[in-house]
Amino acid sequence: MREISSSTRERRKEVLLRLENFGREIYKQIEEGFFPKIIMPSRSTDNIFYDPSLRQYVLGNKRKRRSAGNIRHIRSVTQLVWMAYFVHELTLNQKTSTLRDVFYSAQAYDVPFESQDESDNIITDLESILGYAREDFNVFPEERSAVFGDLTIEYTVPNYEGRRLNLTSHPDGVMIGPALTSAEFIETSADKVIAIEKGGLFTRFIEERVHERFNAILVLLGGQAPRSTRYLIRRLNHELGLPVYIFTDADPWGMHIAMVIISGSANAAHLRDLTTPDAKWAGVWASDIVKYKLPSEKLDDIDVKRLNELARDTRYKGDPWQRELNMFMKIQRKCELEAFSRYGLTHIVDKYLPERLGELE
Amino acid sequence: MREISSSTRERRKEVLLRLENFGREIYKQIEEGFFPKIIMPSRSTDNIFYDPSLRQYVLGNKRKRRSAGNIRHIRSVTQLVWMAYFVHELTLNQKTSTLRDVFYSAQAYDVPFESQDESDNIITDLESILGYAREDFNVFPEERSAVFGDLTIEYTVPNYEGRRLNLTSHPDGVMIGPALTSAEFIETSADKVIAIEKGGLFTRFIEERVHERFNAILVLLGGQAPRSTRYLIRRLNHELGLPVYIFTDADPWGMHIAMVIISGSANAAHLRDLTTPDAKWAGVWASDIVKYKLPSEKLDDIDVKRLNELARDTRYKGDPWQRELNMFMKIQRKCELEAFSRYGLTHIVDKYLPERLGELE
Repeated sequence: MREISSSTRERRKEVLLRLENFGREIYKQIEEGFFPKIIMPSRSTDNIFYDPSLRQYVLGNKRKRRSAGNIRHIRSVTQLVWMAYFVHELTLNQKTSTLRDVFYSAQAYDVPFESQDESDNIITDLESILGYAREDFNVFPEERSAVFGDLTIEYTVPNYEGRRLNLTSHPDGVMIGPALTSAEFIETSADKVIAIEKGGLFTRFIEERVHERFNAILVLLGGQAPRSTRYLIRRLNHELGLPVYIFTDADPWGMHIAMVIISGSANAAHLRDLTTPDAKWAGVWASDIVKYKLPSEKLDDIDVKRLNELARDTRYKGDPWQRELNMFMKIQRKCELEAFSRYGLTHIVDKYLPERLGELE
Repeated sequence: MREISSSTRERRKEVLLRLENFGREIYKQIEEGFFPKIIMPSRSTDNIFYDPSLRQYVLGNKRKRRSAGNIRHIRSVTQLVWMAYFVHELTLNQKTSTLRDVFYSAQAYDVPFESQDESDNIITDLESILGYAREDFNVFPEERSAVFGDLTIEYTVPNYEGRRLNLTSHPDGVMIGPALTSAEFIETSADKVIAIEKGGLFTRFIEERVHERFNAILVLLGGQAPRSTRYLIRRLNHELGLPVYIFTDADPWGMHIAMVIISGSANAAHLRDLTTPDAKWAGVWASDIVKYKLPSEKLDDIDVKRLNELARDTRYKGDPWQRELNMFMKIQRKCELEAFSRYGLTHIVDKYLPERLGELE
């Protein structure tokens, strides 16, 4: 058993501090007799670059400047200042919200947002100013995925502060919502993380005791993983030092689910804590369709178009990406995780999983 | 606190018994020198009727007959017999599967299904023969929603048999998967169920302690509720006698989410345990948009088309359905649950919820 040090409580304090400093800076400018201005990194496409050492997209040096003294900026400056106020209240009172909910909440303050797009964009501005993801200031996604395995967590949310839960408590999996996302990791006996695209297989893995047989924490992605789930995977990797193996369907969409966990996306170039560069896409590979003679379907036009896009994407340069992209193109087939059931329900756990983990370790 | 008697273990025994009787009947016919035939209710649309006393769709008296002696039937009879065998194995060994997974599993036995549609249809045949939903023979949906509140359950799945969990254990909500679905209800202090369409609001309700302030078990629907969730709501209503209140967005899709929980759907006319006829659609109503001056959007063409379809649906005859359909048509507006946040984050819990529950109780 490994003892783990505190981190999410510190993080919350830091976010509050940055929000307060942001407000102080605005006040200071006003007191000094200036129209307050806000300087932040530009997120325009010509300022987004792939950083091979960080292995994720980052922003370049371009800055944008918003001044309350400029008639064209006054709307967005007002929105941004309100947003900072609102999420500071959320974080301080430990209440959570969603993108949609924030949009409506603005109306309680007579702050005009014409559409949710406009308020979402201001939230992203605030992320890039603070250097923290919106989940850190309590704006969470609607979607919920799950985790299961021998990890004891300690809650930091109100009413549950200090209470602990072992993530094997509920055999359907433990939901990844705000409370789990903000929990501290206390203790684990696991030595790896296995992330699975689909709910049916996640349940199969629990039933077949993969968590015990492979000493693993199991994470359900539920398709393209919600940001809270990506953040949790990163924490399992960074805080606990656990290697991460990702299993998806064998198609361009499955590949990209893995890639987004590993290296994030261009529109999160302003954030640092959502990627897990050392995570591995462990299958199902195009070459597995051949190797394991899996039932498969022909790629359709949209699949092929997507494969061509991925082939041009700088993140797909190395292996297994290039090798598997070529194999998809060659065999023109795709298949699903469940395809292993053609050899019996437990084949994927009894044969495929140990073989693949053996190859990658 | 109320003590509750056992039921899901009994149910599992009954399903196994019915599957075995189905097999015995096939054997008997063969031993007597006949080609085995299977008689089941017809699910064609001309045999589906709305039953006002049961308040759900039911099948009429038409039967279909499948005989292994008929060259056109031999394929579906073989598939059906294999399916009964396969799900008996699943249920006996307490392993779960999904519709997709069953389709692939058939290949392990060289039983031909050309598409998942074909295997899904055979599973529905088996449901109508047994009179039990596929979840009862361990074929579960991919989707997972959640529940939260003071209810102690006892697991009946392997490795957890006899272990108990209180559904306030995890403040993000407890996932509704196979283990929760098959659990026994042991004890509760709740006196109602509040079901909520969306994840953000479900979390808000937990944070605002709605479960304590309103003595409620909270259920997350996650859009159109997965069948396991509908089944859980029915059990909370039938086994525990708890009234059920459903909160959705104010639009035709939200209304129908509530209606499907209440009276099921035409394509589940062969099943009895998926509906909760006494559940109430508690809002957000079209009339609430006016009454509470909620931020709203104009209905689009697809919304209006859908409203017209619902107006012709026999289940929408009484109130609040007719009244609210008329109001939607009159005001031509729709709105979301989150719209209450225009009055502050906790308005929905502090004002709207007690007012509406007071009106309906």
